Amino acid sequence: MMLAARSCFRSSAASVTRPRAGNDDCRQPWKTFMRFPSTQTSARRVEDNGGQFEQQEDLCLVSTQDGIQRIILNNVKKRNVMSLSMMRKLLSIVSAVDQTTKTIVISANGPVFSSGHDLKELRAHHGKEKHEEVFRACADLMCAVEDCSVPVIAEVKGLAAAAGLQLCASCDIVVASSDALFSVPGVNNGLFCSTPGIPLVRSVPRKIAAKMLFTGDPITAKEALQAGLVSSVVEKDLLEKETTRIAMRICEKSREVIILGKKFLRAQAQMSREQAYRNGSKTMVDNLALADGQEGITAFVEKRKPRWA
Amino acid sequence: MMLAARSCFRSSAASVTRPRAGNDDCRQPWKTFMRFPSTQTSARRVEDNGGQFEQQEDLCLVSTQDGIQRIILNNVKKRNVMSLSMMRKLLSIVSAVDQTTKTIVISANGPVFSSGHDLKELRAHHGKEKHEEVFRACADLMCAVEDCSVPVIAEVKGLAAAAGLQLCASCDIVVASSDALFSVPGVNNGLFCSTPGIPLVRSVPRKIAAKMLFTGDPITAKEALQAGLVSSVVEKDLLEKETTRIAMRICEKSREVIILGKKFLRAQAQMSREQAYRNGSKTMVDNLALADGQEGITAFVEKRKPRWA
Amino acid sequence: MMLAARSCFRSSAASVTRPRAGNDDCRQPWKTFMRFPSTQTSARRVEDNGGQFEQQEDLCLVSTQDGIQRIILNNVKKRNVMSLSMMRKLLSIVSAVDQTTKTIVISANGPVFSSGHDLKELRAHHGKEKHEEVFRACADLMCAVEDCSVPVIAEVKGLAAAAGLQLCASCDIVVASSDALFSVPGVNNGLFCSTPGIPLVRSVPRKIAAKMLFTGDPITAKEALQAGLVSSVVEKDLLEKETTRIAMRICEKSREVIILGKKFLRAQAQMSREQAYRNGSKTMVDNLALADGQEGITAFVEKRKPRWA
Repeated sequence: MMLAARSCFRSSAASVTRPRAGNDDCRQPWKTFMRFPSTQTSARRVEDNGGQFEQQEDLCLVSTQDGIQRIILNNVKKRNVMSLSMMRKLLSIVSAVDQTTKTIVISANGPVFSSGHDLKELRAHHGKEKHEEVFRACADLMCAVEDCSVPVIAEVKGLAAAAGLQLCASCDIVVASSDALFSVPGVNNGLFCSTPGIPLVRSVPRKIAAKMLFTGDPITAKEALQAGLVSSVVEKDLLEKETTRIAMRICEKSREVIILGKKFLRAQAQMSREQAYRNGSKTMVDNLALADGQEGITAFVEKRKPRWA
Repeated sequence: MMLAARSCFRSSAASVTRPRAGNDDCRQPWKTFMRFPSTQTSARRVEDNGGQFEQQEDLCLVSTQDGIQRIILNNVKKRNVMSLSMMRKLLSIVSAVDQTTKTIVISANGPVFSSGHDLKELRAHHGKEKHEEVFRACADLMCAVEDCSVPVIAEVKGLAAAAGLQLCASCDIVVASSDALFSVPGVNNGLFCSTPGIPLVRSVPRKIAAKMLFTGDPITAKEALQAGLVSSVVEKDLLEKETTRIAMRICEKSREVIILGKKFLRAQAQMSREQAYRNGSKTMVDNLALADGQEGITAFVEKRKPRWA
Repeated sequence: MMLAARSCFRSSAASVTRPRAGNDDCRQPWKTFMRFPSTQTSARRVEDNGGQFEQQEDLCLVSTQDGIQRIILNNVKKRNVMSLSMMRKLLSIVSAVDQTTKTIVISANGPVFSSGHDLKELRAHHGKEKHEEVFRACADLMCAVEDCSVPVIAEVKGLAAAAGLQLCASCDIVVASSDALFSVPGVNNGLFCSTPGIPLVRSVPRKIAAKMLFTGDPITAKEALQAGLVSSVVEKDLLEKETTRIAMRICEKSREVIILGKKFLRAQAQMSREQAYRNGSKTMVDNLALADGQEGITAFVEKRKPRWA
């Protein structure tokens, strides 16, 4: 929704200025980004469609170091649009977390985190089946992010709009630069952000969600923090540092314990209190039975640092 | 709950001063307010009760212009009390939205938005059946506001107390003046705000709702914004301007798309994530099949403003 | 989780300083604290375990005056750890509210509100059955606090960590001193705070809960207020005064009406809107049928102070 994303700046308050594109490519030298191999399915898809969608290579950059898997949205020219191929690429990465990964960070190259769906894929001539395919892929991706075994952190600068906001809202933790904007502007283009509204309304108060969805106007990072859409806000030049700090905090823990904890957290949030406590007590006892559970407690009693398995 | 509403000022912090009555009747000249015709049912009701309730004419003023239906609570002398006749009047208006209305704004004449139920209607001698009638009418009104096909905006100054707060909390968007107060003070008069608590606890954190309900003390507009009860806060003299700005933003969209979007938003908020995504994907595809859905996308691709049907 | 609680200070922002132990024992002279008699069950338990757990007397101090029951956590040396005996003591008190109590305040002696579970009780050699016993007692306590017939207020200074935070989050109202910290740091010791996460995720936005649970890092009182975990924040030297003020506000109401109101509030929060309104209308009518319901309304009409039964 590139037009929608652009047009939202016009209608926003005077104090909200358009974020400038920073030189985000000067990253730390130790980082080596790999081209993530296309999955067979999505590679075939490109052929099937006679190249009508953007070329898939380098849609995202992926690297893993010290337990942190960094996924960098890299379709800068198209404002990291959530095209079918981008969503499938992300889904294939998030679904294939390996044993060395303790947390995932999703960030973006270019001035915009993501501008949302590729409206060109949603024109009438593509037909209803294609539209269904897009939204099925979108739902699959968002649920895969929420259900990913390890915590997923979004690092947001510039703008997260529509399906771009939906991706943020589906992450466990969101770190935003102070100049970031969040919006669900689909209604400006006649396509109400009904599916982005699903994680949105589960993250922020209804009065905020409704205003965003009906007006299409963005909220600032500070407003997003107050509303609960964002976990923390830092100055733009500290953004990557803060995300890395949080990711490293997670990497200090036992991977097995984090995985057990996230799984139960997601599940209990949808349970009645009674069911949550029944299952929760069992989860605590199971946690204690893990090697890392006992190591942590023993280390505490012996006043030393734990050594995870 | 007029006494309750008044008494809450005594117990509030020193910095919370009683809002002064502004001259709210000097409204813009283009606005022509009509006496809304009483429905047959409520007209009969007045006769049945031998005139014991306030005269119904002018309880609210209603006008529609440029897609915005303005409902102005107009029982200034009784602090816009949510009497049975006021609730029925509002219900009849909200239930009869016509094709030209794209959004509704509920505001108030006089210094107070609404002080809540008319406690005189709840005295013992009216009997249990009358009490049941009052709360059935109240529930019908609040659900009708929530389920209204178009977005409903509350414009709040002064005080929204008890059923007055409930009315706000049932709206999609709430704009408050910075001196507005929000309270559920029924407990001060021996009548716990159990039904106002229904939309309240679905809007704000439990710790805030509980403090408000058990102490009866009001929160300020700023606190209400932080808690999620309010969508935005502006200075008192900018209140109508800000509400109108938001309403006009909604009027720029396709009415059909807004209606589809609100319907799904209300529904999905009560669904499991899985069900929400299943229905949500279908809603997106249905949205794309609307004439305005395709017009919006085509306008985007052709880089022009959409022309809604 | 004493180590966890301590270690969280290391990782927190520079501006977060460790709270100093105040001289909290100089309390008002009119207060006479009683040793709360151990229940038979918990007394027997101590014998069964051959005295391996801390001596039970004075784990909490309890007094009731003017309708306010004050429970003071008093295991200062062990940072008011939620040991099995402490949890059973609290459960026995909260489950035995008498007719003179209109509200309960839980506070703490020493610099820390509570540091959470006693990790020594969770070592492997105690066996799975003992672990199950601990978490069953914990769930019983937390549900008893939530379901307590009268409102329960937590007065928090210093630190509320893990099961200590869980206790706060299970109270109706939380008043915090401005230097208080809130954390769920179990993951640092290999024991994810799965059960503290149950009331936490029902109190604060997911993005905040996840960051707290996965990093183990604390949030400040101000952040806790913004997130909805806390009802109000005051300077440390005003903490007891503010809690008492809120408790006294509750004591001014009809006990019967408060009890009816809390019961419905807890219940409706888990209902669908339709069910909530059906039951809510009935609750309002039942409330009006109470002697105190009619007294409150009559007092309002007669412009006098109500005299509760």
